[in-house]
Amino acid sequence: MAKYSIGVDYGTLSGRALIVNNQTGEELASSVFEYPHAVMDEALPSGKKLGVDWALQHPQDYLDVLYHTIPAVLKESGVAPEDVTGMGLDFTACTLLPAKADGTPLCFLPQYEDEPNAYVKLWKHHAAQDHANRLNKIAADRKEPWLNNYGGKISSEWALPKIWQVLEESPEIYEAADVFVEAADWVTWQLVGHKVRSACCAGYKEMWNKKTGFPSKDFFKALDPRLENVAEEKLSGDIAPTGTRAGGLTEAMAAKLGLCPGTAVAQAVIDAHVFVPAAGIAESGKMLAIMGTSTCHMLLGDEDKQVKGICGVVEDGILPGFFGYEAGQACVGDHFQWFIENCLPASYVEDAKAQGVNIHKYLRAKAEQLKPGESGLVALDWWNGNRSCLVDVDLTGMLLGMTLLTKPEEIYRALIEATAYGTRAIIETFAEYGVPVREFYAAGGIAKKDPMMMQIYADVLKIPVRIAGSDQGGALGSAIFGSVAAGSGNGGYDSVFEAASRLGKVLDTVYVPIPEHSAVYDKLYAEYKTLHDYFGKGENDVMKRLKAIKKEVK
Amino acid sequence: MAKYSIGVDYGTLSGRALIVNNQTGEELASSVFEYPHAVMDEALPSGKKLGVDWALQHPQDYLDVLYHTIPAVLKESGVAPEDVTGMGLDFTACTLLPAKADGTPLCFLPQYEDEPNAYVKLWKHHAAQDHANRLNKIAADRKEPWLNNYGGKISSEWALPKIWQVLEESPEIYEAADVFVEAADWVTWQLVGHKVRSACCAGYKEMWNKKTGFPSKDFFKALDPRLENVAEEKLSGDIAPTGTRAGGLTEAMAAKLGLCPGTAVAQAVIDAHVFVPAAGIAESGKMLAIMGTSTCHMLLGDEDKQVKGICGVVEDGILPGFFGYEAGQACVGDHFQWFIENCLPASYVEDAKAQGVNIHKYLRAKAEQLKPGESGLVALDWWNGNRSCLVDVDLTGMLLGMTLLTKPEEIYRALIEATAYGTRAIIETFAEYGVPVREFYAAGGIAKKDPMMMQIYADVLKIPVRIAGSDQGGALGSAIFGSVAAGSGNGGYDSVFEAASRLGKVLDTVYVPIPEHSAVYDKLYAEYKTLHDYFGKGENDVMKRLKAIKKEVK
Repeated sequence: MAKYSIGVDYGTLSGRALIVNNQTGEELASSVFEYPHAVMDEALPSGKKLGVDWALQHPQDYLDVLYHTIPAVLKESGVAPEDVTGMGLDFTACTLLPAKADGTPLCFLPQYEDEPNAYVKLWKHHAAQDHANRLNKIAADRKEPWLNNYGGKISSEWALPKIWQVLEESPEIYEAADVFVEAADWVTWQLVGHKVRSACCAGYKEMWNKKTGFPSKDFFKALDPRLENVAEEKLSGDIAPTGTRAGGLTEAMAAKLGLCPGTAVAQAVIDAHVFVPAAGIAESGKMLAIMGTSTCHMLLGDEDKQVKGICGVVEDGILPGFFGYEAGQACVGDHFQWFIENCLPASYVEDAKAQGVNIHKYLRAKAEQLKPGESGLVALDWWNGNRSCLVDVDLTGMLLGMTLLTKPEEIYRALIEATAYGTRAIIETFAEYGVPVREFYAAGGIAKKDPMMMQIYADVLKIPVRIAGSDQGGALGSAIFGSVAAGSGNGGYDSVFEAASRLGKVLDTVYVPIPEHSAVYDKLYAEYKTLHDYFGKGENDVMKRLKAIKKEVK
Repeated sequence: MAKYSIGVDYGTLSGRALIVNNQTGEELASSVFEYPHAVMDEALPSGKKLGVDWALQHPQDYLDVLYHTIPAVLKESGVAPEDVTGMGLDFTACTLLPAKADGTPLCFLPQYEDEPNAYVKLWKHHAAQDHANRLNKIAADRKEPWLNNYGGKISSEWALPKIWQVLEESPEIYEAADVFVEAADWVTWQLVGHKVRSACCAGYKEMWNKKTGFPSKDFFKALDPRLENVAEEKLSGDIAPTGTRAGGLTEAMAAKLGLCPGTAVAQAVIDAHVFVPAAGIAESGKMLAIMGTSTCHMLLGDEDKQVKGICGVVEDGILPGFFGYEAGQACVGDHFQWFIENCLPASYVEDAKAQGVNIHKYLRAKAEQLKPGESGLVALDWWNGNRSCLVDVDLTGMLLGMTLLTKPEEIYRALIEATAYGTRAIIETFAEYGVPVREFYAAGGIAKKDPMMMQIYADVLKIPVRIAGSDQGGALGSAIFGSVAAGSGNGGYDSVFEAASRLGKVLDTVYVPIPEHSAVYDKLYAEYKTLHDYFGKGENDVMKRLKAIKKEVK
């Protein structure tokens, strides 16, 4: 009798469930539910206005995702509840909420429903930038050893700046919260009935380390004396590696979802990290790039290395037994979208319309005709700052080499090439610090839709590029973890490596570097790297000075 | 009884005549005639194909301009022939033709009509680039003293490279030519019946110097032994300062034009230089920028200085008694047109259409709202290389500071600002070499149509900006020289200074620097200058390397 797993993928605006056959990997049915409250960045449901850079969510939406999508996939697939032996979930992170000891979010309590700091702070809540800046300064001054695990800088998106903001702005909320918990862990808690904490979230977003734990009390005290015991008081609980079972589904939840009580639930994983097993990756040396508006790079390493400028390294954070490395590029799909919206001439839009072709396709058809180096252009891909390995949000974009004959498709291609150079700079940094990359996998819509871009990546990186096979890689990855939570005795798997190799999907197409292209790109990359270092490493801080002038005159 | 002067302005595609009242400066009538052969850049009239970068013209077209436009302005204005006491003309340069001793262009002779090198080589004939490169190398190796009068480099557009090309490719044409003459001087010759040579053309385009004459025979011999006597043999004739009388109209020509025989004809002037008196400028320290697709900067100096990177300095070359300095920016109107054609999003074009507004105006209305420094952008205005003061055609454009919020109007404004920074760099170079600029005058369509740009120039340059008043500045300047050729005894003027101050036109509007803007632009210009030197002076030759790669892969 076939057994099945369900994966639930929580994104920024909606959640998606997918049901997968544990043996064949067949994706039987999926269902999406959009969060009724979406992203609250202007006002609370009560109408109370929010400040600049706030981004909140409502935890009820996360439960509603479960209530709508799981019955829907069961119904559509016709799979019986008893044949679903495991489930897993992945979530945006750091997406954090304050809750009571019994799991009740503070924003569910009437006395706090008008209090912004009682709600979920979404990953892209940027109003704690000042706290992040102060935290980084203090950590650097104190030479905190864990800082190098995160490329030397903590993001304002992470847990501690967000918690510190709550403490400073709403000390009564901080007081009332028995726990600050990642939404990923909070949903798992609701499923299994007891508090859980995943190593993935704790490691990447809460500065926790498997060997050394949280930063010291002294450090927290240096931020604010009231934070001295924040780890024990507000972040307590056992932290479990990825690929383990968090618990079994409660009676009440099982009834609501139409599943059996006791169904295995996996430890939650961050939404990007879960793509790794979904692409069938279960070994070191294979970098996975999840390409969307920005790109997340995931890499398994056999050893613990402090790589300069990456987002983080967490033991057991991606797959158990490995050091999971994360790096990132802040501007990829966004880059191309900016170009389409702001730089594409009317004549092209009209022509594409007349030909009945999508504008990206139209542009790609033109850009594809160009040989490497033919445009004479080189760009720095910093329209949204540089995440890795310079870790500097104040860097900005640059384009060089234009003549009066420069065409839009040449600029478009130069922007694509710039993101490939940015990836090569990241890979070279990993190599320099002893974490080699031998193959490159790409996931996400762009990876499948843009063969030109994938060939450029292969040519620039000089390693083969493979494409993740599932269109629902997040949910598939979560289902894989679900199958491991169930175990082989229940029709699942005992190891995530086995599950990944059986259920993970990769396309047959392999983009192999074309040596003549790589020879030209080697030269162009050398130019990129010179400019990268000149503008990015302090020789000419013009980008920062221009940003400062901009702020001053506004 | 009022007296009148006629000015004829020869452009790239057409010639224009204008008739002006010598006392009031009133512009009574004008007439344009388009050259029937236009620019021959693909084939001769016979169908014979031309090579890459060729650009020829037919001298008959120049005569036809006279035959059509002068009778037309006489008729329209109702001025009697005897009241027209002088005429002048200006021409593109170096626009050069081989002729017989009697003035017959070689291309008029049946045996040469199928011979490309027998035709007029238009200023933008670029097929002698190789000759210019060799000439520059030899001149630099020999440390030729005159080289510094031209910013250290001779352009392929100038006379000697063009003549050398004729010699190498068609030695029989070189042999058959009794003279190589500027089209400007050739037309004057046809008017007055004897060969003339203007100091303006000879000085700026033929390496002639009032004090030292042409380069030495040794130099010419070093180019090619057959060129040893090129100056005496092919460029002979008295060279006369601007502002003097070339002669009187011949009987035959007078009959054809409907003017009186003996009507005074002025020495011809280059089309840009003639704008100086037309803007009423007759003293040192006032820079005139003629803004079109590119910008020419004209400046009168009291002393002979060798300024690095300018196009040339010629005694009596603009106005008699002054050292006439010329500098240039290769990409101004072209820059904005490139942006409009290649970078302007469809939504803007639609919106402008819906509002019934010209797209430049629409864009300007948006760009105008921006404060200096607000965009965070800075550009290098080198889309078409740098003419002054780096004199390097291999430099290319650069734009820096883009974010995902950068708007088209911000880029547009940054390109305009870049041209202003380029002008400031030229003015600072002049000052550094002892030729001060105290006021800035702008002529050409852009100057009148774009108050935002003029204010930006005032703010960046930190000196007042005035606008030339006539819409037909070239023809007006030629008419001014015509009035001086006539002299006061004939209802004209005895000095070009008096004529310029009476007939030259400048608008009442003065753009005065706004100190708060200048303070910000000082900072932005400092950034421009750092990047200018970094990319333009050899620290990072990335632009040249990218161009080399481009050539290689094409």
